[in-house]
Amino acid sequence: MKIFIINGPNLDMLGKREPEIYGHDTLDSINTELAEYCKTVGVTPEFFQSNSEGALIDFIHSARGNADAIVINAGAYTHYSIAIRDAIAAVELPCVEVHLSNVHKREEFRHKSVISAVCTGVICGFGKNVYKLAVEALIASK
Amino acid sequence: MKIFIINGPNLDMLGKREPEIYGHDTLDSINTELAEYCKTVGVTPEFFQSNSEGALIDFIHSARGNADAIVINAGAYTHYSIAIRDAIAAVELPCVEVHLSNVHKREEFRHKSVISAVCTGVICGFGKNVYKLAVEALIASK
Amino acid sequence: MKIFIINGPNLDMLGKREPEIYGHDTLDSINTELAEYCKTVGVTPEFFQSNSEGALIDFIHSARGNADAIVINAGAYTHYSIAIRDAIAAVELPCVEVHLSNVHKREEFRHKSVISAVCTGVICGFGKNVYKLAVEALIASK
Amino acid sequence: MKIFIINGPNLDMLGKREPEIYGHDTLDSINTELAEYCKTVGVTPEFFQSNSEGALIDFIHSARGNADAIVINAGAYTHYSIAIRDAIAAVELPCVEVHLSNVHKREEFRHKSVISAVCTGVICGFGKNVYKLAVEALIASK
Amino acid sequence: MKIFIINGPNLDMLGKREPEIYGHDTLDSINTELAEYCKTVGVTPEFFQSNSEGALIDFIHSARGNADAIVINAGAYTHYSIAIRDAIAAVELPCVEVHLSNVHKREEFRHKSVISAVCTGVICGFGKNVYKLAVEALIASK
Amino acid sequence: MKIFIINGPNLDMLGKREPEIYGHDTLDSINTELAEYCKTVGVTPEFFQSNSEGALIDFIHSARGNADAIVINAGAYTHYSIAIRDAIAAVELPCVEVHLSNVHKREEFRHKSVISAVCTGVICGFGKNVYKLAVEALIASK
Amino acid sequence: MKIFIINGPNLDMLGKREPEIYGHDTLDSINTELAEYCKTVGVTPEFFQSNSEGALIDFIHSARGNADAIVINAGAYTHYSIAIRDAIAAVELPCVEVHLSNVHKREEFRHKSVISAVCTGVICGFGKNVYKLAVEALIASK
Amino acid sequence: MKIFIINGPNLDMLGKREPEIYGHDTLDSINTELAEYCKTVGVTPEFFQSNSEGALIDFIHSARGNADAIVINAGAYTHYSIAIRDAIAAVELPCVEVHLSNVHKREEFRHKSVISAVCTGVICGFGKNVYKLAVEALIASK
Amino acid sequence: MKIFIINGPNLDMLGKREPEIYGHDTLDSINTELAEYCKTVGVTPEFFQSNSEGALIDFIHSARGNADAIVINAGAYTHYSIAIRDAIAAVELPCVEVHLSNVHKREEFRHKSVISAVCTGVICGFGKNVYKLAVEALIASK
Amino acid sequence: MKIFIINGPNLDMLGKREPEIYGHDTLDSINTELAEYCKTVGVTPEFFQSNSEGALIDFIHSARGNADAIVINAGAYTHYSIAIRDAIAAVELPCVEVHLSNVHKREEFRHKSVISAVCTGVICGFGKNVYKLAVEALIASK
Amino acid sequence: MKIFIINGPNLDMLGKREPEIYGHDTLDSINTELAEYCKTVGVTPEFFQSNSEGALIDFIHSARGNADAIVINAGAYTHYSIAIRDAIAAVELPCVEVHLSNVHKREEFRHKSVISAVCTGVICGFGKNVYKLAVEALIASK
Amino acid sequence: MKIFIINGPNLDMLGKREPEIYGHDTLDSINTELAEYCKTVGVTPEFFQSNSEGALIDFIHSARGNADAIVINAGAYTHYSIAIRDAIAAVELPCVEVHLSNVHKREEFRHKSVISAVCTGVICGFGKNVYKLAVEALIASK
Repeated sequence: MKIFIINGPNLDMLGKREPEIYGHDTLDSINTELAEYCKTVGVTPEFFQSNSEGALIDFIHSARGNADAIVINAGAYTHYSIAIRDAIAAVELPCVEVHLSNVHKREEFRHKSVISAVCTGVICGFGKNVYKLAVEALIASK
Repeated sequence: MKIFIINGPNLDMLGKREPEIYGHDTLDSINTELAEYCKTVGVTPEFFQSNSEGALIDFIHSARGNADAIVINAGAYTHYSIAIRDAIAAVELPCVEVHLSNVHKREEFRHKSVISAVCTGVICGFGKNVYKLAVEALIASK
Repeated sequence: MKIFIINGPNLDMLGKREPEIYGHDTLDSINTELAEYCKTVGVTPEFFQSNSEGALIDFIHSARGNADAIVINAGAYTHYSIAIRDAIAAVELPCVEVHLSNVHKREEFRHKSVISAVCTGVICGFGKNVYKLAVEALIASK
Repeated sequence: MKIFIINGPNLDMLGKREPEIYGHDTLDSINTELAEYCKTVGVTPEFFQSNSEGALIDFIHSARGNADAIVINAGAYTHYSIAIRDAIAAVELPCVEVHLSNVHKREEFRHKSVISAVCTGVICGFGKNVYKLAVEALIASK
Repeated sequence: MKIFIINGPNLDMLGKREPEIYGHDTLDSINTELAEYCKTVGVTPEFFQSNSEGALIDFIHSARGNADAIVINAGAYTHYSIAIRDAIAAVELPCVEVHLSNVHKREEFRHKSVISAVCTGVICGFGKNVYKLAVEALIASK
Repeated sequence: MKIFIINGPNLDMLGKREPEIYGHDTLDSINTELAEYCKTVGVTPEFFQSNSEGALIDFIHSARGNADAIVINAGAYTHYSIAIRDAIAAVELPCVEVHLSNVHKREEFRHKSVISAVCTGVICGFGKNVYKLAVEALIASK
Repeated sequence: MKIFIINGPNLDMLGKREPEIYGHDTLDSINTELAEYCKTVGVTPEFFQSNSEGALIDFIHSARGNADAIVINAGAYTHYSIAIRDAIAAVELPCVEVHLSNVHKREEFRHKSVISAVCTGVICGFGKNVYKLAVEALIASK
Repeated sequence: MKIFIINGPNLDMLGKREPEIYGHDTLDSINTELAEYCKTVGVTPEFFQSNSEGALIDFIHSARGNADAIVINAGAYTHYSIAIRDAIAAVELPCVEVHLSNVHKREEFRHKSVISAVCTGVICGFGKNVYKLAVEALIASK
Repeated sequence: MKIFIINGPNLDMLGKREPEIYGHDTLDSINTELAEYCKTVGVTPEFFQSNSEGALIDFIHSARGNADAIVINAGAYTHYSIAIRDAIAAVELPCVEVHLSNVHKREEFRHKSVISAVCTGVICGFGKNVYKLAVEALIASK
Repeated sequence: MKIFIINGPNLDMLGKREPEIYGHDTLDSINTELAEYCKTVGVTPEFFQSNSEGALIDFIHSARGNADAIVINAGAYTHYSIAIRDAIAAVELPCVEVHLSNVHKREEFRHKSVISAVCTGVICGFGKNVYKLAVEALIASK
Repeated sequence: MKIFIINGPNLDMLGKREPEIYGHDTLDSINTELAEYCKTVGVTPEFFQSNSEGALIDFIHSARGNADAIVINAGAYTHYSIAIRDAIAAVELPCVEVHLSNVHKREEFRHKSVISAVCTGVICGFGKNVYKLAVEALIASK
Repeated sequence: MKIFIINGPNLDMLGKREPEIYGHDTLDSINTELAEYCKTVGVTPEFFQSNSEGALIDFIHSARGNADAIVINAGAYTHYSIAIRDAIAAVELPCVEVHLSNVHKREEFRHKSVISAVCTGVICGFGKNVYKLAVEALIASK
């Protein structure tokens, strides 16, 4: 099973900012840890991060024929990128929306996701574990 | 680790209604399967279902001192029961909000949860797997 | 034909409050009169009243397999109980929503019903006659 | 007892459109059937249909002194014709608002009626039976 | 191919008002020019204009069985006439909504059309050319 | 100076309904009294009343070239007839919007007028005097 | 008949600002002209202008026992001063709300008046004539 | 004077949760203290707490004929229980709505009470003193 | 303990208006009665009333260093004076918001207070007793 | 006449996704067909597609001096890209907004376009024909 | 160049309240410092502060003919005083709106300014420096 | 002091469009002039412009460790790019939001900024001077 693990805007800043507060987990270390887990469950992950809406859409498109499922943390684009929503819908693959934090505890504009309705499910609030849980959910739903 | 697995209104109807469509999983069979999983990870589950808002609040209160965490599928109360929200907040335990279906694909009034903001995280859309994923998330966050 | 006649919160107060204004019809006398009518048209009514949302949901569930149709005056729950809405939808029976008064002449928050969309039809504004009209409507639609 | 049975815009299309789906009941056949029922209960009906808001208002006005009550299916005017609302209020007669379908199951703009508040009651969702139920309701409320 | 070309309220004033500003094109001259174009493409147009919502509905109804398609500039009724919307839906013919001006450059209440959702498509902003473009679009979609 | 005095829906019911409450002034007697006043100030009034939106638009159009100004009590159409608004704007004449009652003391939906913005001014709340005041205002603004 | 003529904030700037555009009528000259008219109809006016909400309320209060009616141009306070609204209601006198311009042609926030509902009537859009028309309306309604 | 002192959902948790922060006052100790005060002013209190909306409504109903007034802290039900609102209205007794905290300093959804409009008055923000102040207010208003 | 008792716009009209309806209690007599009560509990009141927002703010400022607490009935300013809100916040003293009537039974715009969030608590609906209750609440919270 | 034909996000997926449903028309084949049509009417088209908002803006800018008009299908950006709106406005060329589907039949968030107000006109709902109709409209408006 | 430096409600409290937090800068010391700066750039400042909306309007009016520009910190009036907005518009001078804090980081009701649209520009968030920056901006724009 | 001067979408069009109207100041000439000013105050500016949201985010990220502050004119992204907001928040540097025009005088959708709340302050309406004022503000706040 091939899964695209996609991270959106500002997630490249993880772990670089105030490590004494947010911890030393960079996106790279999270991905490395996730890759190890994937190996144990027979999943081939492919990682991608971009701050550009267009690049994210291009990569989502490339999943068609190249991946069996998508895990996406669309960052702030979650709240307004109807273009990313349409891209997810277009590739017609199982897709899990994840967020590190519980977005419902934050500003009101983060409570609304324009992509949830085209995803299989949503997982948020468990820090870096959301990626692993999403992979599990995809395996279980296979 | 003791976890309360709480199901709210109408979830007692699972599997009883149009099995050819919704499958033969009743809440009982889902709970049995979950109990087996819990055993493998050293978790003691306690199951509770009620259609009554008051009974749900009473049971949530009883978690204080008797449980380490809560998994709750509050059903329709998710969308308006501020009383259940306050109960969850009052017991000060990790709590995961789950939904069998992806509520964001359904009627607009199901997109809003009044309890998300007092939960640790939210998992929805993976059918009966959401309970198992929630238990895992709680273990991982311990 | 078996029909469940369900009355929600505060309808047990009918006729007990200012009889000189609201008349001497208690819920019991309305039910008795309705039972007599039902006999003449070959309908077996079963009456239930509760102020508890949970008890109402339990009773609606019991209609599955035990009744052919439901007549419900959900009282104030009409305006916010999505849990009762889901219960009505779950039993998959013809259901008529009734109100004694014309709710559209009252406070704006009474103009919105969260259960209408899962009912067969709605009848309001004709006092105790709404129950009889609902039974007739159910017979005619059989 | 003289009752005006008024039908608004597009109801003249009943039965003419996709009979295999909507049935062969034209407005004429519904009216004929209703007239027969009226005879059995001592009611003299007068039928009127128009697609014109002004003509409907003129006819409602003519009820003053010429009718004891009104049954009105205002069609789409239900949702915005404050002029029809004012006409109903002006003639000061019992008036029942009816709809063939359960409007609350349809588009959101059909959930709001600007005439309900000046009517005695509302009946919707029982197909052609709504006219008969309305006549009964008027007789019972006499 | 027979096409009904329908113009709503105030469009009879075209060309009569401030010709130095709005040009000398009256609705008649626009229709004449359109009729000539229709001849070249094998279309038989039938023209109708009315300021009356009811008359417009009556004419739309008459399209059933008498026309293959409709082109409608509903003028101000575009923004609130649910009755005209229902009439268009009832005749079940291809229908193109047109506007001479780009309504999105005008007052906010002109940005919303209640009829677009029951039309095949919408064309606005190209002056009298919108009628010709609509006819072409109907031919191309045949 | 020629002034069109236009009354919209339901104003033909004035004085016919509960004269002990609303007084014996019918629209006719109000018009007669106004005609007498007009004579004293050199104004030629022309009176028109209709319950039909289309007929009102037709008559407003006829003011172009035939009248110097318009006084209009559009009744309930005031609140939603964008078609009448456009008709008033199209004839490019001074126009005074009047209402017998102070609409701001009534239901909230009567507080909004869609025609005010295309009128010269608005006068409401002084009973039948609003017509006379409107004529005066037009003379003074000449 | 004694009438208080009250002008609110910024009306002291009338005629002082761009006389080539707004004319040479200052508030003083408007008041003088109005005083002359009042003499001819047996009305004793008393004039007051202030930019202070408190001073306007004090003066409105003083009308109780000292005036038979009020004409008020509350300027910008029209749109938010509930305190002035309460003052007008408290003195229980006929009160006419006036505005020089047609406020409905201006910014949307000027379309809403918080004082209309406690006034006898409203007159706007006829320049300085609104004061004279208001006095007439008060005389006629006496 | 007999007064029902009613506490709604989650108020049974008072004093049990983080006593170092919220103090050692349990609902029992608050009630005991209040009972002592009541004795000094000749009031007989009857205490009731429930997390169940239905049980609260049942108890409110029982006040009819058994109590002279009600003091209610409806907890979270304050914000959505129209059923409790109707129960309070139905018993037609003086009723004081109280809240321990100043709800206006908390989340926006706590700013709205659906029961205030059927209560005599509201007291909030003074901790346990609100119950005593409510009793005093009821005595003074007797 | 020194307490400022502040009354806002239109409260100087108390008792002067329709005494047969509103009673003979003027603000002066209410203050006198309150002063007597204060003496019995060791409180020194200082009374202030103004219709001017600015004067109220000036007086609130003067509380800093001169008073231990504030009781304020801000009248209509309650609903929009953010300036008074900021003044209350700036003096950092306990402050009780009071209203004679239960504002929640009145027009919707009176349901919202912009000052509640910066006050210690709110008391409304008990007539002149609200002032005494507020003083008590302040003593109890000392 | 040189016309830029611009397609936004996800339109590169046309024809690649479920050809049995959406047909075999890829964006390339649509462009090829359009190019042929352009030749017959003396128009030189230049085609551009990107999923990137920034790239689309860059290309729109390049129209200044290099093109006589623009046809744009902005895809999902239509609904929120004020940056694309500003780009269209900045180049000051005739621009036609097109959509393959009738967006008004789809989700409500697709009913609003932020670019319509800066375009010459809008054409939607006629599949690939919208591009040809747009070119025609531009020629006719030249 | 003469510039009026106007401060609104509660700004007289600057520096008097919690100096250990807000610093020792009183409005006087800020004004003194600004006056010194003005001297270096050839500007004559005139300072005014009031808590009264009316006094602020009076002073703004006095700018006409006496000042070349205005710098205004309208405090809380910023958010609702349409009267101050009209005063600024009436004097037709360059005017800079300033705020010490970044109002967009505070409560939502502080995000909206009713005066921005009639000012030349807005500067907020730089503490006392906003006054100096505003003077500079005015000089540069001269 | 190193300051990043960032310009967003469409600002590369400055001065290229209708120079006779908007002036000859291109973004380059504005930057050159600003660079000269920076030299006089010991500031090292680094300039960046892009129409791409992703590229802007990348550049903002690069400010971390490379710059002491940011001045950003986010153009149209100001109104919806939560991703840029998050980028600004992530780098934890002083940041000034600037706009050439007074956005509050333009379309309503330009009145709302999603980035203001994470900036130090906002300056708008003074043309190219806003950049210089922002640099000054940053120096003064150092």
